Amino acid sequence: MSLLERFDEGEIRALSKIVSLIENREEGYEDTLGHLYRKIGNTVRIGVTGPPGAGKSTIVNRLVHQLLKDDKRVGVVAVDPTSPFTGGALLGDRVRMNEFPIDGSFYFRSMATRGEVGGLASSTDNVAVAYDAFGFDVTLIETVGVGQVELDIIDTCDVVVVAVVPESGDAVQTMKAGLMEIADVFCVNKSDRPGSARIVADLRMSLELGNQSRDWWKVPVVATQAVKGENIDGLLEKILLYLSVARESGEFERHRRQQLEKKLWALLQDQITKEMQDKLSKMARIDQIVDNILNGNSDPFSASRELFQKWTDSVS
Amino acid sequence: MSLLERFDEGEIRALSKIVSLIENREEGYEDTLGHLYRKIGNTVRIGVTGPPGAGKSTIVNRLVHQLLKDDKRVGVVAVDPTSPFTGGALLGDRVRMNEFPIDGSFYFRSMATRGEVGGLASSTDNVAVAYDAFGFDVTLIETVGVGQVELDIIDTCDVVVVAVVPESGDAVQTMKAGLMEIADVFCVNKSDRPGSARIVADLRMSLELGNQSRDWWKVPVVATQAVKGENIDGLLEKILLYLSVARESGEFERHRRQQLEKKLWALLQDQITKEMQDKLSKMARIDQIVDNILNGNSDPFSASRELFQKWTDSVS
Repeated sequence: MSLLERFDEGEIRALSKIVSLIENREEGYEDTLGHLYRKIGNTVRIGVTGPPGAGKSTIVNRLVHQLLKDDKRVGVVAVDPTSPFTGGALLGDRVRMNEFPIDGSFYFRSMATRGEVGGLASSTDNVAVAYDAFGFDVTLIETVGVGQVELDIIDTCDVVVVAVVPESGDAVQTMKAGLMEIADVFCVNKSDRPGSARIVADLRMSLELGNQSRDWWKVPVVATQAVKGENIDGLLEKILLYLSVARESGEFERHRRQQLEKKLWALLQDQITKEMQDKLSKMARIDQIVDNILNGNSDPFSASRELFQKWTDSVS
Repeated sequence: MSLLERFDEGEIRALSKIVSLIENREEGYEDTLGHLYRKIGNTVRIGVTGPPGAGKSTIVNRLVHQLLKDDKRVGVVAVDPTSPFTGGALLGDRVRMNEFPIDGSFYFRSMATRGEVGGLASSTDNVAVAYDAFGFDVTLIETVGVGQVELDIIDTCDVVVVAVVPESGDAVQTMKAGLMEIADVFCVNKSDRPGSARIVADLRMSLELGNQSRDWWKVPVVATQAVKGENIDGLLEKILLYLSVARESGEFERHRRQQLEKKLWALLQDQITKEMQDKLSKMARIDQIVDNILNGNSDPFSASRELFQKWTDSVS
């Protein structure tokens, strides 16, 4: 049997191979993905993001347990260089890395964080496509929410959970700097710590006062203590509620179309950039242009305009 | 006098206006930058990155003090949503936000972190160009080193300081996940805390064992206590040593050329992407293509190839 046939049969080792193929962008991975794209659309993607130390891995871990208990098939992609999540610890002694249940009910992959962020986001999306084609009901995507990754998660997931802890003002500050806008559900984890009630109240007030860009959804704040499994069912309930409301409002569908369109443009951009670089590298002496800029006789903006002109002249 | 003339005269308020123009990408900012590019090349750019809580702002603050004492003119760009650095606190009571020394010896700008990461990185670079044209000897760029930002700093700075603290294993883990490769100088800050000597030793060993990609530079590890100003002179010494060795080896120049070439391609890519989107949006029914993918009759990879073909046919 070919790899794709074994994959279609639900063989977990075939999934693992295909995920590696996608992650490493081995030759032919686009054709494989093209094939997988024909049979997707049944997996819901849940993103969990937040600052380092918010307990994202533990939350994901607990959500997996809950979902498996509900007879869901679950895949996890972790994109977090600081994450202690290793798959090995996930199901206690039952599952170690590379020893996933033979019934194909669970799979986990931690993505390498080297290289371009764009590349990483699209790899995560591609792996989620493989999970979908494999037949998972739910894919959980864990990313660290500092820097830019938190924005990519919107383009990859159907629902975004932002996890924070009742620490110093740092969490709130980080949050205010970008996480506020992307949360569909807020999770205040480690809720046994002092200040928990206050941060829940603060968040609720900020959400109340902030520009409510959506009239069909009021972002809930859920307090959890993931390490003890406390209120994970409450969290999952809000996540599922969001998904059901989003489906009814048409937002779920609209969002997926938007994600797909964005992906299409990104692929096209890659293709055209490559083509353009190949052509222009032959047509123009880039090193001389760089010399001119360094000598103060040109600047990147004029040089770029000239190169663009040169290129359009050459293709027309 | 025009804004650019006042800028050329060294008026700090003119710098402030031009930085705003660049940061907000107001109309004509590219022409302004084109003008500024003609007279740059004299500022050295020092990047300071590391995980949240490493004390980056305090380190930058202290480095500014030291440099001003050495009669250097200094500009700071902070790109850190979690940063408490506000310019106001920087020179004690002497300087408050928007009250910079009239002699043009110091300026500070904190960049908003909303929007695209590519946009933010290029804005930071553009602001550094303005600082250079204004005549600063040194530009310090502070960025939070989690996620992707740490990779952008290589494309913006001449030398990169990675700051960590002797905390839990988190710092080391974060570091191993990407910061190791980009450090020209390591700074173990808060060196009064327990574990400091160990992390210094660990880092030195990792650096020793790791693939030394550069035979002309051995990354030093400097222990500081920035809040008390301890060993900031030692840190600065290593930074300046790096710069001088890099200049001698030709790496400084090679790196700047590489940065410029990368910037040039990025600008071209923006331009071509815009042109392509405009054209294709008129030529093809993107919504129908998205429908086809959602219905399992196509996939983004095939669709992208078809659109690319359509576009090259149309321009040739």
